[in-house]
Amino acid sequence: MAAGLKPSGKPDLALIVCDAPDPAVVRGAGHPIEARRSAAAVFTRNAVVGAPVEIGRRWRAAAARGGEAGALRAVLVNAGTANAATGEQGVRDAEACMRAVAGALGCRMEEVLPSSTGVIGPRIPVEKIVEAAPRLAAQLARGEEADASAARAIMTTDLVPKGAHREVELFGHKVQIGAIAKGSGMIAPRLDSSAAPPLPQATMLAFITTDAAISHRALQRALESSSRESFDRISVDAHPSCSDTVIAMASGAAAMPVLHEDMPEYHGFRAALQSLCEDLAEQIVRDGEGASRTFRVTVRGARSVEEAEKMARAVVDSPLVKCAVHGKDPNWGRIVTAAGNAGVWFDASAASLSIGGVEVYRHGVPTGVARTDQRLREAMSADRVEMVLTVGNGEASAWMIGCDLSAEYVRINADYTT
Amino acid sequence: MAAGLKPSGKPDLALIVCDAPDPAVVRGAGHPIEARRSAAAVFTRNAVVGAPVEIGRRWRAAAARGGEAGALRAVLVNAGTANAATGEQGVRDAEACMRAVAGALGCRMEEVLPSSTGVIGPRIPVEKIVEAAPRLAAQLARGEEADASAARAIMTTDLVPKGAHREVELFGHKVQIGAIAKGSGMIAPRLDSSAAPPLPQATMLAFITTDAAISHRALQRALESSSRESFDRISVDAHPSCSDTVIAMASGAAAMPVLHEDMPEYHGFRAALQSLCEDLAEQIVRDGEGASRTFRVTVRGARSVEEAEKMARAVVDSPLVKCAVHGKDPNWGRIVTAAGNAGVWFDASAASLSIGGVEVYRHGVPTGVARTDQRLREAMSADRVEMVLTVGNGEASAWMIGCDLSAEYVRINADYTT
Repeated sequence: MAAGLKPSGKPDLALIVCDAPDPAVVRGAGHPIEARRSAAAVFTRNAVVGAPVEIGRRWRAAAARGGEAGALRAVLVNAGTANAATGEQGVRDAEACMRAVAGALGCRMEEVLPSSTGVIGPRIPVEKIVEAAPRLAAQLARGEEADASAARAIMTTDLVPKGAHREVELFGHKVQIGAIAKGSGMIAPRLDSSAAPPLPQATMLAFITTDAAISHRALQRALESSSRESFDRISVDAHPSCSDTVIAMASGAAAMPVLHEDMPEYHGFRAALQSLCEDLAEQIVRDGEGASRTFRVTVRGARSVEEAEKMARAVVDSPLVKCAVHGKDPNWGRIVTAAGNAGVWFDASAASLSIGGVEVYRHGVPTGVARTDQRLREAMSADRVEMVLTVGNGEASAWMIGCDLSAEYVRINADYTT
Repeated sequence: MAAGLKPSGKPDLALIVCDAPDPAVVRGAGHPIEARRSAAAVFTRNAVVGAPVEIGRRWRAAAARGGEAGALRAVLVNAGTANAATGEQGVRDAEACMRAVAGALGCRMEEVLPSSTGVIGPRIPVEKIVEAAPRLAAQLARGEEADASAARAIMTTDLVPKGAHREVELFGHKVQIGAIAKGSGMIAPRLDSSAAPPLPQATMLAFITTDAAISHRALQRALESSSRESFDRISVDAHPSCSDTVIAMASGAAAMPVLHEDMPEYHGFRAALQSLCEDLAEQIVRDGEGASRTFRVTVRGARSVEEAEKMARAVVDSPLVKCAVHGKDPNWGRIVTAAGNAGVWFDASAASLSIGGVEVYRHGVPTGVARTDQRLREAMSADRVEMVLTVGNGEASAWMIGCDLSAEYVRINADYTT
């Protein structure tokens, strides 16, 4: 709904509830639905975090201790204000909103998490949100239209709403996983697992619901590993935010035993979840601020995945490489030197680079393919430019997806708050 | 001179010779000039380096072993082609040019270093350079006009030639230090000392000459520490090149004893050299590609200088902060979260930020200064915006200077080679 939080008057408040269609049906299956509910979350690794992330981290610490705390019923998301750099007041503001939502849904406040995106510094408009909560709960709906409507309400500089859906068969039953996401600028998520040290990341939000019955521990583990191979692999502008959040809620409504990590079916669920996260991540980078095209950098032959990732990240974050992609210019020297800048040593005389399958650099010297070569031109003009850099004979590889840097990016960001 | 290396036909080849005006005069002073000559150099820490840097590193290794190798007579600089990613052929090409210059100057090839800047990949036009060498040597001149002419010949995307001069009194005699430099894009130098591991850096060149008599060891040490507090403190685009080079040559012609590190006069020389390097570094960032203004980020209260520098670097390299400076937009949340992204933990509730002396954030919460506040507007419109971020009670601080990100930057870099 539009609660008057965005100056534009556009939708700005979304409530995502994960519940069984009819709890009585599930209860009839032998287990009360409350015992089959679970949730998981990963957050930004920035040293500076918003109040919702503080509250989310506390929830996760409680969830890790086991019991009922490992479940969630709803997430309230507002766009327009990030509720970050707001100190203790920010936490109190978020809690007031959680209380209002819990009241409207008839659940405990601890079963609700807040999430905020927008300008850093100002307080969120608590009164407007509290006042809107009952109306928001009354408007709750299922189906594609409701999903799209929620996806639109959490947008900031996004041009298109983002969502994805996967179906996976577990124990002979079809299980659904659905999600909405937002993100366009401040995108370079590096989500933490549990209590990891601060690291670069950015403003993206994704909310996943499923009717699977899965333990908190298994859902948390599946979400962490899926995030690492999806959200952590995209970068729009290498800049951190303080609000990155991915929350997954499982209702347990599907007719299946509760899934644990040691069951073979866990891998089917995890694969579907990762596929969904990859889909969302790609939608985000494709809608990167000012982006017209994306590019994927795969680094092979590294000594470790960590080193390969560092090199791939250095390439996708280089403004010079991003400009070259924008200009469809096969200026491959920028790619090689960007990788050389990652703080990882490699033997340049053993390095090779291909763009869209066209090898331009082999064992440290140019292959002689002209920059005007037609195949190279086409490769650089692709909707997603593919760059493969081989740095040695190591076993490890990693990839990152970035987007081009355009004058439009500067326009969007030179006067965002003014 | 214009040797036909740049498609534009502009000057593209410079020869810098460091010699006594009249060697006989110095010889009369009791020491042959050859024994009073010395040189020093620092190079990029990129894992991928150009042929001139390979040759320069070999020279430095030989110089460190002592003796005559610690001196240089000349540096030959070409613009247009970087002679990088050219393998062993690139080294042979550079050596052919060194040989031609040595022949023209009547010195040994080992007394000449090459330096190249421009497009990565293609070979340098050896024949044109070898053919030009005698003419170049014949045109050698002293004075401001010659300096400016050399500074223009080494420009690539630079808009203005760069140079600086300092005079310092040592042992009662006036000693001169002069320099030219280039750099506009691929600027974020992090120069190595001797055999440091690869680290981020960028394409900038600076050539320093002095008539001081100073030992190789003392000159190398003075150059390293001066670079750390000047060239290493600027960033235009956080992107590495493979050619960053600063070379200092001392003729020994000044009437003074040979300076060593343990003499009190060493500090006077070092201070003058650092002041000169700061001047050049600031000229480079001010002429950053597409830049209209610069900004300095000072991080205070950190636990170590290394951590302070990491945070300051994360802020000056954030495209979102750079865009905010471009738009004169006091979007300070971007500054705080950029620092939070540096991979260094700090307590946000103890952090404070001021822009141009106006405190906007204190102990983790906004001070309430409106984004439209006139003083804040003026601070963000300054020719050099000053940001001071205090992250705790630590003793350490560091600063970095960056420049704004403009649509012009994208234009320059989206079609540099095409």
